[in-house]
Amino acid sequence: MDITLSTGAAVDAANITAQLRGLDAADAVEFLNSLNADDAAVLLAALPKPRAVELLEQPELLHAAQIVALLPNDHAAHLLDAMAADRATDIFQEMDDPVYARLMGRLAPHTRRSIESLVNYPDGTAGSLMTTEFVSAPASWTIGETLAHVRRVEGSRETIYAIYVLAPLTYELLQRVTLRRLIMGELDAPLLSVAPETPPITVTPLTHREEVARLIRRHDLLAIPVVDENRQMLGIVTVDDVIDAMIEETTEDVQKFGGMQALEQPYMKIGFLSMVGKRAGWLCALFLSEMLTASAMQHFEGELDKAVVLTLFIPLIMSSGGNSGSQATSLLIRGLALGEVRLRDWWRVALRELPMGMVLGGILGVIGVVRIALWQMLGLYDYGVFWPLIALTVGASLVGIVTFGSLSGSMLPFVMQRIGFDPASASAPFVATLVDVTGLVIYFSIAIVILHGTML
Amino acid sequence: MDITLSTGAAVDAANITAQLRGLDAADAVEFLNSLNADDAAVLLAALPKPRAVELLEQPELLHAAQIVALLPNDHAAHLLDAMAADRATDIFQEMDDPVYARLMGRLAPHTRRSIESLVNYPDGTAGSLMTTEFVSAPASWTIGETLAHVRRVEGSRETIYAIYVLAPLTYELLQRVTLRRLIMGELDAPLLSVAPETPPITVTPLTHREEVARLIRRHDLLAIPVVDENRQMLGIVTVDDVIDAMIEETTEDVQKFGGMQALEQPYMKIGFLSMVGKRAGWLCALFLSEMLTASAMQHFEGELDKAVVLTLFIPLIMSSGGNSGSQATSLLIRGLALGEVRLRDWWRVALRELPMGMVLGGILGVIGVVRIALWQMLGLYDYGVFWPLIALTVGASLVGIVTFGSLSGSMLPFVMQRIGFDPASASAPFVATLVDVTGLVIYFSIAIVILHGTML
Repeated sequence: MDITLSTGAAVDAANITAQLRGLDAADAVEFLNSLNADDAAVLLAALPKPRAVELLEQPELLHAAQIVALLPNDHAAHLLDAMAADRATDIFQEMDDPVYARLMGRLAPHTRRSIESLVNYPDGTAGSLMTTEFVSAPASWTIGETLAHVRRVEGSRETIYAIYVLAPLTYELLQRVTLRRLIMGELDAPLLSVAPETPPITVTPLTHREEVARLIRRHDLLAIPVVDENRQMLGIVTVDDVIDAMIEETTEDVQKFGGMQALEQPYMKIGFLSMVGKRAGWLCALFLSEMLTASAMQHFEGELDKAVVLTLFIPLIMSSGGNSGSQATSLLIRGLALGEVRLRDWWRVALRELPMGMVLGGILGVIGVVRIALWQMLGLYDYGVFWPLIALTVGASLVGIVTFGSLSGSMLPFVMQRIGFDPASASAPFVATLVDVTGLVIYFSIAIVILHGTML
Repeated sequence: MDITLSTGAAVDAANITAQLRGLDAADAVEFLNSLNADDAAVLLAALPKPRAVELLEQPELLHAAQIVALLPNDHAAHLLDAMAADRATDIFQEMDDPVYARLMGRLAPHTRRSIESLVNYPDGTAGSLMTTEFVSAPASWTIGETLAHVRRVEGSRETIYAIYVLAPLTYELLQRVTLRRLIMGELDAPLLSVAPETPPITVTPLTHREEVARLIRRHDLLAIPVVDENRQMLGIVTVDDVIDAMIEETTEDVQKFGGMQALEQPYMKIGFLSMVGKRAGWLCALFLSEMLTASAMQHFEGELDKAVVLTLFIPLIMSSGGNSGSQATSLLIRGLALGEVRLRDWWRVALRELPMGMVLGGILGVIGVVRIALWQMLGLYDYGVFWPLIALTVGASLVGIVTFGSLSGSMLPFVMQRIGFDPASASAPFVATLVDVTGLVIYFSIAIVILHGTML
């Protein structure tokens, strides 16, 4: 059979199918991503069904919803029925409303129920990551009965490496048995005989994905069960979905720390105007806040006129405050994210950053004073007759500003968390802006005290 | 039996053991971490051996090497023999030389060989993450023979969910069969009948952990085999070790992006002086570079004296350059880390960031001009008779500096990667410093052109 691509080229479907079979799923997806949605849909329709399902299940496949929408209705519904429910839900969530309604109506009833129960959980929660395709068994079964059940349902479950043991009447989650322990047991022994002593770790559908990742990591799990308030199982989150979520979370955190909205799309794929939108907002907000520096300097206009030499060190002093603040913020963002530091530890951190800032500021202050003295004595620049006082002003300001930078940079992630934001929203540019305005006030105030009666 | 803690308190070993049994491993480790190494060793010695091994295998256990060193020699060797080889290797790597030699001599020969082969791989490579405890089977076996073998060796293997199929004579890695497929097969069918069509994904012992994580994620694996140049298997890296490595990598990246050396220890645990060391180095380097701003301003001393009003906008303009640079750097660091952007794409990125910087700079420029005009017309501040020219200088400088910031911020991660560094070493403060000096030169040069013949 020949199929015609949008470029007008007719390609042999059997040929393409054979080619795609030789590639592993990740490479095949990369190939589909290089085509437009129409061509990808034509090729996908020509593939054997299990292969098409495998490719649609890759989260790296771009425009999956668009591709599915372009397939004949019944073919699309067949593929969606055969897919893992969590991934099918992701695809439904990206669909336009008319396509959503059209395809939802053609799904098998059990697929429809699964997807309708998954589609309503907010992004970034365990509910949005979970799949309903797990293996469960009543506590009354033997190991042999359970193994036979696992063999029967294997094809329709995302993982069979954990089997969830439910109370026979209430369907409450009692235990979690690994396939590993199961195949080691005697066939006629009761299922619960190979269960661990401790109850299984669970999450609720609204648990944040970062917490899910933390638990999976802490307990070295391959999947974690999601339960409702009656300990009825709603689904499981598997380790591969958690890794994807962690990568996405890291990308968002780094972009936010860089001072912008998270892109949510690869750098090369996002449109120019969307990119402007993601970057201009924060840039303007920071710019408007930074305007306070101009106001601060206008306030010290009299001092500036009398001692223009003071302006020479403004960039140096301000940037040191911003840099020390950025260090402290990055430390505490990670400390809070990893649970090494908790909200109630804020005062412990403050008591640590205060002397830390003073020592770091002291080191920079000494370098600053030496620099001014050197330039003056070597005749590289003439800071005037009061140069020792100017050097003292610069040195003292550095101590004050680096201390303030370290302290406010370390407290900002706590403030963010306290008022309900992600601590990772405390960006380096945000800290720098905060420290810049205060830094100028500190610098000029110290200058007024030290230079009063001489230059000012 | 009573045991005496360093606090002088005598506690009942049976009691403590019972208490620790009720906790899951992660909580028990947290309890041990709250004790000093002597007490932790006393308790660990009193625990049943399988439980002690389980706790020592948790990577979250602090001072594991110290604790093991405090145990009686034979007891320590027994525990190390029973542990997963990769984790035992981690513990050996933290030991002082005399303890290392003393305990290594008492290990069972096969444990010693495993550890000696693992201990030499550099940190951050697949070799340093891998374990030698995987299940392999010759390609000549049936499914039944393989399952019997899996049951026999289960206790000594880190994972049994992937079985590696080796060529009978050369021991070359041929295929990877999952336990899932194995239990679905007929017992007398050949092992290779349940193998996938594509060859297994492998890494070498020197593959970087970031690449290992990328492959595990891309192919949704639970473990990845590590092979030498003859495709002989050296070990496997399991998904839980990869998650730990990813978290460590993210923490390092965020700390480096914040402008400091990676801490390698939790914030609350690291000593004050080590912390000063990790932060002062970069802070001083940035401070010394930033001194160029003072030199730049000294160079424009004549202009500064004539038009002090120009200094009012220095912090505003410089910080906008730094902020736009920080945005671009964070975008490209992640783009390169995720493989969305490759080294050879640098010119594509440059062609994107150039108009992006001009648009963003244009937006800020308009806001800047409006701000100056507003303040002047509302009588909030008097910028003098040439205020429209000053507003024009500020606006034009913003376009130039934000463009330069976006461009150099986006190119810095490429430069880092090109000269062999991690692109994540391009920190926000580093970009800001780079842009600050150039920003001043741009600002004053534009001022000289626009204000020539009027104020300058």
